[in-house]
Amino acid sequence: MRTLVPFDARDPNTRLDAALDKTERLGFARAMCRDVLAAVREAGHDPELLATASFDCDATVIVDERPLSRAVNAVLADADEPVTVVMADLPLVTPTTIERLVSPEADIVIGPGLGGGTNALVVRHPEFRVDYHGGSVRKHRDRAEATAGTYTTVDSFRLAVDIDDPSDLAEVLLHSDGSAASWLREAGFELTTRDGRLTATRPPDTG
Amino acid sequence: MRTLVPFDARDPNTRLDAALDKTERLGFARAMCRDVLAAVREAGHDPELLATASFDCDATVIVDERPLSRAVNAVLADADEPVTVVMADLPLVTPTTIERLVSPEADIVIGPGLGGGTNALVVRHPEFRVDYHGGSVRKHRDRAEATAGTYTTVDSFRLAVDIDDPSDLAEVLLHSDGSAASWLREAGFELTTRDGRLTATRPPDTG
Repeated sequence: MRTLVPFDARDPNTRLDAALDKTERLGFARAMCRDVLAAVREAGHDPELLATASFDCDATVIVDERPLSRAVNAVLADADEPVTVVMADLPLVTPTTIERLVSPEADIVIGPGLGGGTNALVVRHPEFRVDYHGGSVRKHRDRAEATAGTYTTVDSFRLAVDIDDPSDLAEVLLHSDGSAASWLREAGFELTTRDGRLTATRPPDTG
Repeated sequence: MRTLVPFDARDPNTRLDAALDKTERLGFARAMCRDVLAAVREAGHDPELLATASFDCDATVIVDERPLSRAVNAVLADADEPVTVVMADLPLVTPTTIERLVSPEADIVIGPGLGGGTNALVVRHPEFRVDYHGGSVRKHRDRAEATAGTYTTVDSFRLAVDIDDPSDLAEVLLHSDGSAASWLREAGFELTTRDGRLTATRPPDTG
């Protein structure tokens, strides 16, 4: 099985702009990516980073400047074995999460993301292609039903929470102790309570 | 095992005010509650509604006007068997989710909610008490470590997504076909794409 981790090495997670400047955003995105690569590796798989630009990291890097769906589909078209695709902004993912993702024997396994995205996929059917544009989980379910013999979804909070909005940062501090959580703490973020929900904020003097 | 479903029968899910008027909000909250009760029952358990006011529904109803934590703790103090607590605003929950929640043999099982809440708990330790005030998942983890022999968490998207903000409504239309999803469709809500995420909105003429 091949395991792809798509990563935007140029301008990742732009909606985090409201909380992080661009240099910080790149640093944080890399820390999240390291967490995902580590979880994949600890689960016994060999991650390949599918990056929009060259990127120095502890994994095989495939550089493909095309939009996400085209880059992933190019790998799927060439693959002669199952392909797992796990997004790079999922720092809550653990080795156990990866094991849960790949263990169902279905042709297609879908890990839904909050807001209708598809945060993880296992593709064991040669004709299945991705389309990550808005609301992809519905498209992927429809396509899986149309092309594949069997498909299933994985009910995982750790797969569902992609960190692409400032309101998501609290989840990293709450549920992870990896690189991304360390990065946030070192950047001065801490948990505070607002409207009964915890949010990650930093005091103005460290911002 | 007893299974409590706490429900605010007077003024539930106030943050949904931005999308629903009060009559609608009550109707939608009841629909979500029906989904949770049905999932608990289909999983083989007998749900007890712990409500702030009397409420006509297909379950045993315990009326307790006190704040949530005190009402739940009163049940825990009296119980001579394990107690499961599942919030009423979790319409994504299925019988399988309930089975996953109760199957670990730990003294305390925690189902984290988005934003640091505790959406589900299994309490098999006589001294454990809840505190649902802001950021409860940290408190419950700390208390479980302090009082219980063993504790674990359940990694479930369906347990984590409580529907208490308008931005959560899309998840119901995407991942459920129960009473709450039907309620939203009948009220005119539909999925639209905004900033790459799906949101549930209704055309102005039906609002």
